[in-house]
Amino acid sequence: MTAPPRAFIVVTGSELVRGDRNDLNGPFLASQLLRRGVEPARISIVGDREDELTLALAEGMRADLCVVSGGLGPTHDDRTVEFVARAAGAGLRLDEELHERIGGVSRAFAKRLGRPYVDFEAGVRKQATIPEGAISLGLAGTAPGLVLEHGTTVVVVLPGPPSELQRLWSVALESEPVQRVLGRAQPPELRQLRFFGASESAVAKALADAGGDGNGVEATICARDFEIHVDLVVAPGAGSRADDLTERLVAPLERNLFSQDERPVEELVLDLCRARGLTLATAESCTGGMVSQRLTSVPGSSAVFLGGVVAYSDEVKSRELDVPAEVLARHGAVSAEAAAAMAAGARRRLGAGVSVSVTGIAGPDGGSEEKPVGLVYLHAETPAGSRGADFVFPGDRDSIRRRATVTVLHLLRGLLQQTRDEAE
Amino acid sequence: MTAPPRAFIVVTGSELVRGDRNDLNGPFLASQLLRRGVEPARISIVGDREDELTLALAEGMRADLCVVSGGLGPTHDDRTVEFVARAAGAGLRLDEELHERIGGVSRAFAKRLGRPYVDFEAGVRKQATIPEGAISLGLAGTAPGLVLEHGTTVVVVLPGPPSELQRLWSVALESEPVQRVLGRAQPPELRQLRFFGASESAVAKALADAGGDGNGVEATICARDFEIHVDLVVAPGAGSRADDLTERLVAPLERNLFSQDERPVEELVLDLCRARGLTLATAESCTGGMVSQRLTSVPGSSAVFLGGVVAYSDEVKSRELDVPAEVLARHGAVSAEAAAAMAAGARRRLGAGVSVSVTGIAGPDGGSEEKPVGLVYLHAETPAGSRGADFVFPGDRDSIRRRATVTVLHLLRGLLQQTRDEAE
Repeated sequence: MTAPPRAFIVVTGSELVRGDRNDLNGPFLASQLLRRGVEPARISIVGDREDELTLALAEGMRADLCVVSGGLGPTHDDRTVEFVARAAGAGLRLDEELHERIGGVSRAFAKRLGRPYVDFEAGVRKQATIPEGAISLGLAGTAPGLVLEHGTTVVVVLPGPPSELQRLWSVALESEPVQRVLGRAQPPELRQLRFFGASESAVAKALADAGGDGNGVEATICARDFEIHVDLVVAPGAGSRADDLTERLVAPLERNLFSQDERPVEELVLDLCRARGLTLATAESCTGGMVSQRLTSVPGSSAVFLGGVVAYSDEVKSRELDVPAEVLARHGAVSAEAAAAMAAGARRRLGAGVSVSVTGIAGPDGGSEEKPVGLVYLHAETPAGSRGADFVFPGDRDSIRRRATVTVLHLLRGLLQQTRDEAE
Repeated sequence: MTAPPRAFIVVTGSELVRGDRNDLNGPFLASQLLRRGVEPARISIVGDREDELTLALAEGMRADLCVVSGGLGPTHDDRTVEFVARAAGAGLRLDEELHERIGGVSRAFAKRLGRPYVDFEAGVRKQATIPEGAISLGLAGTAPGLVLEHGTTVVVVLPGPPSELQRLWSVALESEPVQRVLGRAQPPELRQLRFFGASESAVAKALADAGGDGNGVEATICARDFEIHVDLVVAPGAGSRADDLTERLVAPLERNLFSQDERPVEELVLDLCRARGLTLATAESCTGGMVSQRLTSVPGSSAVFLGGVVAYSDEVKSRELDVPAEVLARHGAVSAEAAAAMAAGARRRLGAGVSVSVTGIAGPDGGSEEKPVGLVYLHAETPAGSRGADFVFPGDRDSIRRRATVTVLHLLRGLLQQTRDEAE
């Protein structure tokens, strides 16, 4: 097998190199390249300083494909095109057709702002000036995306705003020079295994015990939102090796494996409810709406999800979820009894087939020796039965809330899956 | 003024360079450096390939400070320390004290896993092997953070997991070599201006009309979660220039400026309620709990926030929020009338002083010519009066929901601020 084509990604933006904003373009481009069989070798994030950007571009020109994002605006600090031309040893030329198109957009813009077009003229000229030999990919606002070649390197220049970059990237993919690079690549097969309730090190150990990756199967183990995701990149021809590795990896973790596709747990829960003709309601205290928010993030969730009550105060727990005053007085709002009563109340009050509840202490204050910060009670109720669980989660307020949310969704998933499996 | 010290950040991790996971360490370190007067010149994200990592490290050694994250684990692909030593021209040595400490941690770990310690011995030896002259920053798990010097460059090596990195970074800051670099830096003053309801280009134009940045004041304009944030980095001595710029920038955008500190809008809303002795409740349809989730993300929110109803189905809107059947039949669940009834219902049913409601069509399905995807009705109600608003938001489901959430929080903020200002 020949080595796959290699790509460098150069992301420009002062706000990115200063950490004011997290770069989204690098990861997007990297994963786009990877699934097409191009190996992302480096992501460089640089500001608009000439020396830094020039050096990063020079390095990028050593790769088969160099994708550059940002710095295409009309102002004097946006100098990406000029530096790319210089790094590629190409002159600059005014593209008449681009000049006309960008001028048209800018004239309309000037009119809307009530400013004279003359204010825009220098910017238009600058944005219509591109390296000799470059192909235009069309405009994002007034900025053209570009493809040019330098020796054996294909350079793609894209605008910084992620939605614009993604739109012009799909145009770049169709361009002849990029197609030529992709033609030398062998797209791998991408597989996923998702686990819940196993630690990252347990999954790493299972992978090692299964023989580890290599020989055309590359495995990445990632803890993501309290689940463990194993991504397998399977080279052409290594399918049966991947099957074998998967089987041996999964064997000791059978009960933790919950998905082999990209559906998040909230979508699995909704699909399980839908398949059984059940509607769903939530009752949340410390998660404050995070569970319902995740469920409703799925398009079409309204076919299953009826609604929920965020019962932050004790009065709301009693009034809106019928949690008995006696339960609150005797066991407290953070108790297995309160969680069970909340789930039952949400199910009955909202007229749902299935419900989940969360009550706990997210901190930083409100903990005690008996009930520490991180203590969370969860409950799930279905027509076939109910299940409760409690945990003391580590971490800060956000982390405790997110972990409680994921865990209660998995609690319900498990309960629904079990009753489904038993019914089958 | 002398030039500030410059830093390179080298982030290693196959899953990061492949876009499987977004890097958080680069932005964290960059913003930490910036606020101490060190200029982050580049963030390089590389995998664990020897050639790539070696090249990135060699570049990093040109800076005053080179901070490296990741690749400190016990396995054979974790080779950061070895490559750092080579790039710095330093030999490697087994540190006896580290060997003992890491051995202790690993013995306990082996016992917990029920595995023989001999399986861990090679890893322990590897992790206790550090460059000659390096200072240990203590352990993260079994990985030591390190500081070493190479010529005029100070190199800091930190573990990849963000929480571990952040913990050892604070130790690194106190180390003598890093202190020496910081001693040459002049920490800037950081100021913020936060706007809502003005476009990024309107803020950019106001900044340009105000004379623009420069002369010791650097301004970055960022659209963040549908607000526009202007970050000012003010060099020592440029305070009055920053005052002046701020005044002229803010003048045309007075009614859009909502904050000059780091408090997010949900915290401002809670503070305004608290100051007026008001409790708060929410009624959400399309946002599905996102509003209550943001409000409860603030520690101590339970003093103000009582709870909310996520009324996704029409039945729940009627049953739990007393939205009249006639309103739903005549105007539909996505209407100004329904939004007003939801807010009134939440306020009355939950016994709150103030309430907000959201109802809309988040898509991708469910839109019509009359009521398109993105149509959202918002309502806020206080003892002093109420206010409704409607929008057609662009973007996908997630973006429509997030924008509706931010906008209703600002609607309530404006209403509370107005009544407060009138009362004063």
